[in-house]
Amino acid sequence: MNPYAIDVDLLIVGGTIVTMNAEREVIVNGAIGITNGKIDIMGTRNIVVKNTRPKRVINAAGKVIIPGLINTHTHVPMALFRGISDDLDLNDWLTKFIFPAEAKNVDEKFVRAGARLGMAEMIRGGTTTYCDMYYFEDAIAEETKKAGMRGVLGETIIQFPVSDNKTPTEAIAYTEKFIKRWQNDPLIVAAAAPHAPYTVSTDDLKKIREQSDRFNSPVIIHVAETKKERDDILAQYGKTPAEYLDSIGFLSNRTIAAHSVWLTPAEINIYKTRGVGSAHCPQSNMKLASGVAAIPAMLAADIAVGIGTDGAASNNDLDMWDEMDSAAKLHKLTSNDPKTLPAELAFEMATIRGARALKLDKITGSLEAGKRADIVIVDMDSLNQTPYYNVYSALVYSTKATDVRTVIINGRIVMLDRRLLTLNERAIKIDANAYREKIIKSLGN
Amino acid sequence: MNPYAIDVDLLIVGGTIVTMNAEREVIVNGAIGITNGKIDIMGTRNIVVKNTRPKRVINAAGKVIIPGLINTHTHVPMALFRGISDDLDLNDWLTKFIFPAEAKNVDEKFVRAGARLGMAEMIRGGTTTYCDMYYFEDAIAEETKKAGMRGVLGETIIQFPVSDNKTPTEAIAYTEKFIKRWQNDPLIVAAAAPHAPYTVSTDDLKKIREQSDRFNSPVIIHVAETKKERDDILAQYGKTPAEYLDSIGFLSNRTIAAHSVWLTPAEINIYKTRGVGSAHCPQSNMKLASGVAAIPAMLAADIAVGIGTDGAASNNDLDMWDEMDSAAKLHKLTSNDPKTLPAELAFEMATIRGARALKLDKITGSLEAGKRADIVIVDMDSLNQTPYYNVYSALVYSTKATDVRTVIINGRIVMLDRRLLTLNERAIKIDANAYREKIIKSLGN
Repeated sequence: MNPYAIDVDLLIVGGTIVTMNAEREVIVNGAIGITNGKIDIMGTRNIVVKNTRPKRVINAAGKVIIPGLINTHTHVPMALFRGISDDLDLNDWLTKFIFPAEAKNVDEKFVRAGARLGMAEMIRGGTTTYCDMYYFEDAIAEETKKAGMRGVLGETIIQFPVSDNKTPTEAIAYTEKFIKRWQNDPLIVAAAAPHAPYTVSTDDLKKIREQSDRFNSPVIIHVAETKKERDDILAQYGKTPAEYLDSIGFLSNRTIAAHSVWLTPAEINIYKTRGVGSAHCPQSNMKLASGVAAIPAMLAADIAVGIGTDGAASNNDLDMWDEMDSAAKLHKLTSNDPKTLPAELAFEMATIRGARALKLDKITGSLEAGKRADIVIVDMDSLNQTPYYNVYSALVYSTKATDVRTVIINGRIVMLDRRLLTLNERAIKIDANAYREKIIKSLGN
Repeated sequence: MNPYAIDVDLLIVGGTIVTMNAEREVIVNGAIGITNGKIDIMGTRNIVVKNTRPKRVINAAGKVIIPGLINTHTHVPMALFRGISDDLDLNDWLTKFIFPAEAKNVDEKFVRAGARLGMAEMIRGGTTTYCDMYYFEDAIAEETKKAGMRGVLGETIIQFPVSDNKTPTEAIAYTEKFIKRWQNDPLIVAAAAPHAPYTVSTDDLKKIREQSDRFNSPVIIHVAETKKERDDILAQYGKTPAEYLDSIGFLSNRTIAAHSVWLTPAEINIYKTRGVGSAHCPQSNMKLASGVAAIPAMLAADIAVGIGTDGAASNNDLDMWDEMDSAAKLHKLTSNDPKTLPAELAFEMATIRGARALKLDKITGSLEAGKRADIVIVDMDSLNQTPYYNVYSALVYSTKATDVRTVIINGRIVMLDRRLLTLNERAIKIDANAYREKIIKSLGN
């Protein structure tokens, strides 16, 4: 026995650790000791094992240990609308299906059921942090905390009456209470989520920025998702969306700008200057024919751009593995260069760069001593991963959500050997199917 | 007991049958009776159950029953090169990794091990038929027959010396014996596979067409995969690739033209006139930055265009679910219209239209009495599929390869409740990992 060994709550032993630290170290046959929810000690197996007295051990031999994935943009309760309508014009999709379905079904109980469904899918796929924009976000925060997930959760503020708040003023007041309630929570970051530049007034956007300054809280917003939005904003304000937002003092290093498909080089420069984080949603942008964001240019400018699935109604899943694969392939195609967005960079976007986008990179997004223990253990012996030559390539191009074995968030095991520990999968499915019946009835015929 | 009931070898009972017949019938709570490898009786559960005396029953209640998926283009043994090199220029990828790795490793034993690996992955994902182009194709045919898969298997004919044949003349002679050996086989269709218009001489292409006429056998070829190929052929022959192939009398309704990324409208018309089938490989074309095939135009001309994964070295998996999802999304994006390539049409490409491309639509690609029993039972209750509103949407946008439960090919159960019955998964992985070591050594450092 080593008398200088330290006590740890949990020791992960064996496996290849993909740290995603600044040096991009990969530790073959490593070990990680976790205490009080944080990574206490990390290194090669022999050294860590000699120097720790663990309460509990997880054997990860032959597996790959990665930072938990970070889904930088979704609308988690929309999992209940998964596949409710597809292959339609954006306007038909929104006005004939999504908006009526929301108006008739969304309440606090609905968002709780939808959040549980979406989180169960995300945890199964190794996502440990997500960034959300929806209604009744305080209830979503409660569910997220119960599930043990990390969330940057934004209450929607929008010009027309919605399920929880009837005016932007009400929504801003809701957000104020919401942010106050969750200050200093270890898992939840409460935020405002003004829907988009075309659905929130200049005055309200200014109020939201002011609120964010008072609380040092993030602000989540859709920016330049479609060409129409870009053209409309240009016609209305004489400026492109990010230029307009910057001109009214809205953008800051606490802004998380989803999509950002139609940015000009000047707007990318604004993102860089203001420290705006961004969420790239390749599959949703493809499925809704929104366009292709200039990700290579954004990365060249070192913008903190993460990867997001968007809501399940426009994807139709919350699978970050698919999303990484799509991102890496899409930008090769559009840049006409197979060297664009190599696997390691796509994986970086789904981990540490995504954490930067959410301003959480001090606590998550990489495996380093001192950070919170958001850790995912991935099987690497499925047929689809066999054989494997390069760990980043195997992760991005060959690994599937179902290859995720064990998920730890903030030191707590939330999935062990593919069994969810904080969410009741059977009950979640029963709830979801009951909502399905209700939603179909609510839309008539 | 019904005295008029017929004996069937296997009865699948319950579940939603997605027939993909001409009327696109979907039978809720159906049943399928199989005898001598063929679909004998099919319809609603009550009627079929009353009229059959089964030797064996599979309960598919709550599941979805689909025609086996058809992978219209791959190089199956290249599963052993999965991820050996990624994110490189096409030329570096081929000349620094793929060609040397092939030259130093490919022999009959290698293609057998690679074929078993690739087929195990394909069966796990519900693929029942695949179209291949590689070396030692006769050995691949033997492995395919042992695994119980259906294959259109093309022996590569190429201008430079390769592992099995040193000249195109040798390769054409090999193909002659190969085709003769497998004539009238219930699972294997042997074929010639001239690599591409730029790697096989005009004379040899003519000889291959003549051989195909004598045996009524398919011919598999890469056509217009890259802009460079298109430009080179245009410079050399004054014609675009499909124009050139047609001008030498090469194209027929037995041609299976993979990729076909850079076709002109005139060439699409040539495909239509000649009855050429095609294989669309969206993920490989994205990953290698080859371009986007004009699939909407090809479909508008009713070309038999299926979906293919291409080899695992350029994908990096053999997952037809991912491929359908990518196809549906990619063409929405490039056509700037979210109505393009709706889920049902993407599913059609992966089933009956793919069967047409391979000239196998009389025996597979849809579930109809009289066709061979190539049937896949899919779980529909994973979190990523919950809830589900529309069966095609759920299949294309939400279902994963791991949701496939049971696979039947030509009436034989090759996977039951996710257990492979004709292939030894453990032995396949051991072989693959041994090859991994050998391949790494063969490339030096």
